[in-house]
Amino acid sequence: MDRHNKGLTDDVRMRGFSRRQPVEAALEWLDSELRPLDAEVVPLQQAASRVLASPIDGEIDVPGFDRAMMDGYAVIASSTTGATLRDGIPLTVLGDSLPGYPYEGVVGIGEAVRIMTGSPLPVGCDAVLPAESVRNAAGADEADARALSGRVVNALAEVAPGRHIGRRGEDVARGARLFEAGRLLRPQDLGVLSSVGAREVRVVRKPRVRLVVTGNELVPSGSKPDGYRLVDANGPMLAALVERDHGVVDFPGLVPDTEDAILDALRADADVVIVSGGSSVGVQDLAPMLLATHGELAIHGISMRPGSPTGLGRFGHRLVFLLPGFPVSCLCAYDFFAGRAIRALGGRSKTWPYRSIRAKLTRTLTSPLGRLDYARVRVGEGGVEPLAISGASVLSSTTRAEGFLLIPADSEGFAAGTDVEVWLYG
Amino acid sequence: MDRHNKGLTDDVRMRGFSRRQPVEAALEWLDSELRPLDAEVVPLQQAASRVLASPIDGEIDVPGFDRAMMDGYAVIASSTTGATLRDGIPLTVLGDSLPGYPYEGVVGIGEAVRIMTGSPLPVGCDAVLPAESVRNAAGADEADARALSGRVVNALAEVAPGRHIGRRGEDVARGARLFEAGRLLRPQDLGVLSSVGAREVRVVRKPRVRLVVTGNELVPSGSKPDGYRLVDANGPMLAALVERDHGVVDFPGLVPDTEDAILDALRADADVVIVSGGSSVGVQDLAPMLLATHGELAIHGISMRPGSPTGLGRFGHRLVFLLPGFPVSCLCAYDFFAGRAIRALGGRSKTWPYRSIRAKLTRTLTSPLGRLDYARVRVGEGGVEPLAISGASVLSSTTRAEGFLLIPADSEGFAAGTDVEVWLYG
Repeated sequence: MDRHNKGLTDDVRMRGFSRRQPVEAALEWLDSELRPLDAEVVPLQQAASRVLASPIDGEIDVPGFDRAMMDGYAVIASSTTGATLRDGIPLTVLGDSLPGYPYEGVVGIGEAVRIMTGSPLPVGCDAVLPAESVRNAAGADEADARALSGRVVNALAEVAPGRHIGRRGEDVARGARLFEAGRLLRPQDLGVLSSVGAREVRVVRKPRVRLVVTGNELVPSGSKPDGYRLVDANGPMLAALVERDHGVVDFPGLVPDTEDAILDALRADADVVIVSGGSSVGVQDLAPMLLATHGELAIHGISMRPGSPTGLGRFGHRLVFLLPGFPVSCLCAYDFFAGRAIRALGGRSKTWPYRSIRAKLTRTLTSPLGRLDYARVRVGEGGVEPLAISGASVLSSTTRAEGFLLIPADSEGFAAGTDVEVWLYG
Repeated sequence: MDRHNKGLTDDVRMRGFSRRQPVEAALEWLDSELRPLDAEVVPLQQAASRVLASPIDGEIDVPGFDRAMMDGYAVIASSTTGATLRDGIPLTVLGDSLPGYPYEGVVGIGEAVRIMTGSPLPVGCDAVLPAESVRNAAGADEADARALSGRVVNALAEVAPGRHIGRRGEDVARGARLFEAGRLLRPQDLGVLSSVGAREVRVVRKPRVRLVVTGNELVPSGSKPDGYRLVDANGPMLAALVERDHGVVDFPGLVPDTEDAILDALRADADVVIVSGGSSVGVQDLAPMLLATHGELAIHGISMRPGSPTGLGRFGHRLVFLLPGFPVSCLCAYDFFAGRAIRALGGRSKTWPYRSIRAKLTRTLTSPLGRLDYARVRVGEGGVEPLAISGASVLSSTTRAEGFLLIPADSEGFAAGTDVEVWLYG
């Protein structure tokens, strides 16, 4: 049993970290490393929820013509001067203007073109007289536009110049800045981009994230637990977290706890490498040693619980996160550090994708000074109920919980009845 | 020009809806039609953010064995009775227990097995003595487990039975209900499901949504605007909205404004059909007439602005939404009705996927009684600033806005300084 030769024989391992960094120090290092990735061009249809890499200006007017904003009759406004319900003013109808099919002629005083909402305004017109201000509007028996021509209708009200007209460029004016770089594209943004003729857009590339799940006690997700072998929980959880944070997951399977295998995985074609397991200070914890030797182990050991045996560093151009193997620790450390980085590399907000609420704590929750605590809580009618402090090994504590609260390092906890902020998982 | 024969000749078209339904009545009809779709089985790896169709019970204990929760020495607790820092009690070390690699022998009084966090507790042991409570812990020179055997260490503290042990089934107890039907699966849920050996899960099927974008004045997204032809904005916007709401989009391209083409599209293999354009009451508005003739047009014309010319109905098993062609109206009517339905069919919450905030209105906003108004607003330091009331044709009003507020039908609006709820688009 070769691996038994690397037993628990290291005093450091047996004694724990000599010194842990505050969460703030870890975040400070991390944030100094975070810049959005380079750009890529994607088809407009795939650009929803992506982040613009460059500003976009409209290169054309939308619409490219004046148009009717109501159904009615396009006129020269002065043709209606003096028109009242009692004293109508006759207008000779020349034809129709329909969406995409304008009336091609010129309209003069005393003339009108029947027009449908959205249709191009005929040349010469400066207003639309609404249908309800017209008597003897063409009826269904005059469906044929040719028959319509020459018919006389009566304007029953005045219309002011410019009324019921949408001007060329009212939606997008040629040359106007539509979106700044960094814009998270909304569904309606795609509509506006489509309307100016955009076919593709430059967006921030999604971070490629290699998952390196180690642990000789593990069998792959999809297997049944076998004796003293547990099924990998962190792999599928991390993959879903990375996808939530708009990273591209590369998870080719479990990685043996050997130097060669881990070093090989650190060389992945990726922007981020997340190692799960073996992140502490023992002889069996290979990843921190490998990262310190072949790359940079900037932070190792953080004053938080769970998640204390976390490491942050670099391997070449890659940001590397060494996360503890216990799944609650893994989740917590991911959310504090790796998720933040993946979002920022993708040009997104560093803030948590969790909604927070405020509610009263049902019972006192204590925490030692100098350590940040991440407490899973239930949120019900009665308030915020901390779950029994269960180990970092009990992932179901995060599925039974509605969310979590943080007890900062400079706090000894919260008394029952305190109004606390709870971050909701769901 | 055959289509000109179907000009603006219908009095109804020219006069508008004879009667509009309140938004509440439309929602009441819609909600009565909404039930989650049937189930489908997906691989666990694809189940994140899906909705469980059936409850799931754990069929095994996780872990399947008692394990150490600290690095240290597995012992029978009574072996340490009376141990103090001054008067250590000797323990003979039998070997190692490592994750996945248990110590296979039996431990008796006065004996110990060096154990690593997460490793199986050896037979006979009932506690783990933490490494820091042991003098002469094995050092790095005893890396070889065989050399370790027989070595004597000193317990420097008592340990109580059960201490630092994680019990079999502490994470998942065999037979326990893990998740109820309707659960929106979180990343950590996949971890728990993986740990019980789940390979696939039964989830609510995603609604298939056929987009039917009509309008003879349109050219497809990806084209340049051409004369009096506009580029379709609604298609890409609706596709992104449907994807946001976890529907599966089927958008084969623009559909001509003809009865045959629209009827054919209504027969799509889909759970939901969304028609954009031609939703009003004119002769050119074919979809409402077709739906009324061949299906059910349950609601047509709604007291809201924008979005008034909206229709809701059924065509066979399909829910059908007739949305106005003007893009702001289309967005608004989608969000009120179609998005709600797509989420509910998928087993999700009907509520908007928008976050809301409260802030003060910078200026008075009025609205007629009897109509719900959807007002785009900017949200800044100074408060909530309504955008100039621009037409439903100006989609960029929804990209310049941070969000929108609603003025209910029973309100004449809000005075400047009123604290209002704003729904944020972003």
